[in-house]
Amino acid sequence: MNRTAAALVIGNELLSGKVHDANTHTLARALRPLGIELRRVVVIPDEVELIAAEVNSLRLAHDFVFTSGGVGPTHDDVTVEGIALGLGRRVVRSAAVEALLREHYGERLTDGHLHMADVVEGTELFPGASPAWPTMVLGNVFVLPGVPQIFAFKLEGLLPRLRGDEAPFVLRSVECAVDEGPLKPFLDSIVARFADVAVGSYPHWGNDAHRVRVTFDGRDPARVGDAHAAFVRELPADWVVRSD
Amino acid sequence: MNRTAAALVIGNELLSGKVHDANTHTLARALRPLGIELRRVVVIPDEVELIAAEVNSLRLAHDFVFTSGGVGPTHDDVTVEGIALGLGRRVVRSAAVEALLREHYGERLTDGHLHMADVVEGTELFPGASPAWPTMVLGNVFVLPGVPQIFAFKLEGLLPRLRGDEAPFVLRSVECAVDEGPLKPFLDSIVARFADVAVGSYPHWGNDAHRVRVTFDGRDPARVGDAHAAFVRELPADWVVRSD
Repeated sequence: MNRTAAALVIGNELLSGKVHDANTHTLARALRPLGIELRRVVVIPDEVELIAAEVNSLRLAHDFVFTSGGVGPTHDDVTVEGIALGLGRRVVRSAAVEALLREHYGERLTDGHLHMADVVEGTELFPGASPAWPTMVLGNVFVLPGVPQIFAFKLEGLLPRLRGDEAPFVLRSVECAVDEGPLKPFLDSIVARFADVAVGSYPHWGNDAHRVRVTFDGRDPARVGDAHAAFVRELPADWVVRSD
Repeated sequence: MNRTAAALVIGNELLSGKVHDANTHTLARALRPLGIELRRVVVIPDEVELIAAEVNSLRLAHDFVFTSGGVGPTHDDVTVEGIALGLGRRVVRSAAVEALLREHYGERLTDGHLHMADVVEGTELFPGASPAWPTMVLGNVFVLPGVPQIFAFKLEGLLPRLRGDEAPFVLRSVECAVDEGPLKPFLDSIVARFADVAVGSYPHWGNDAHRVRVTFDGRDPARVGDAHAAFVRELPADWVVRSD
């Protein structure tokens, strides 16, 4: 089985350029050792109807969907409402989350905080590691927060659950001392012989403009190794700056 | 007129976590002073059919589409082929781009380089600034490279063309010394009175966990200023750390 994933990143702050999205990169890197292929990332504003439509579209086309953002207590946190609309379910108060909030905030608890106890009906609360805060799961949809540090540790807690029987992706690379033009026939030759290895070619820029990083990704370490070795062997020796 | 934009970011290297996407942030920031609203970002792999479908979906729903990546000379550069498929057009050799390539590479020119002269039939070549390299334009679709430095200066060259009669977005912000729970009623009150101002609330994390950045975005500087001023006035004075 070769499972796929999509990310739905929710937040006006990304689309207006206030902050960089760090969570997509975190997710992409976390899924590689599991052999799960991240196929699509969509970034949309904090709007209920858009979230509803996009969650539905992504969850039907991928094995996993990870949402990021929009789960705090304020007016712009509408991810739960959006998913509920998409799934045609109600939003209900979770007694379990309310108890956690009461314990966490104690006397400082406000009605605002309690908004975070409102979940889509039928939400599974997957136990977190540390801090012991559960992740909302709706079928194949995992609802994660936008704050990068919390996104990362909640995702970490999910990894054992996501692990299947896929081989992890392995990566080899070669740093080349020429631009992409002269490399092209060598690349084409490898691509023609190694259909099961994804070959990437990434030019540097600035001082290193005449350098290209060539990468070999795949699930079969032997095939990736063979593609990498063949490429290095076939290139003029003085084009190879480094081989990893 | 309030125009909208979408970004289509093309590249396996982003989805496999090899590199961060910097171009979305560059685009988001560049569009704000023009008053153009970035509504959606989609990241997909280097696959012709996906590019075709996504370009079509985005160009019909937005005033502008900016693609990023997949325009070099190698096998994984399939953006032109994807757009051609989406638009139902052929890929043809551009004599103008070929001449530029011959001039730029001189004796180093390879067949690989010439692949970059293959364009979608009917492509407009919008003249670049420095270096004098044109940007491919197909109706409302602007085809930009993935290398962040080139993306940025090609986008810069497009800005005069994109400028319309929209008011630029203006931004004010307040740094608050409490978490989102107690802020919520104050935020809700502003949101209720200022429907034309987008109010955002962004918690910090780590050492600043009990701080929130509240932002006010809009096209009318007076309304944004009024929302910002009302919020600062209504908050307990010692909650306001900084006001910009």
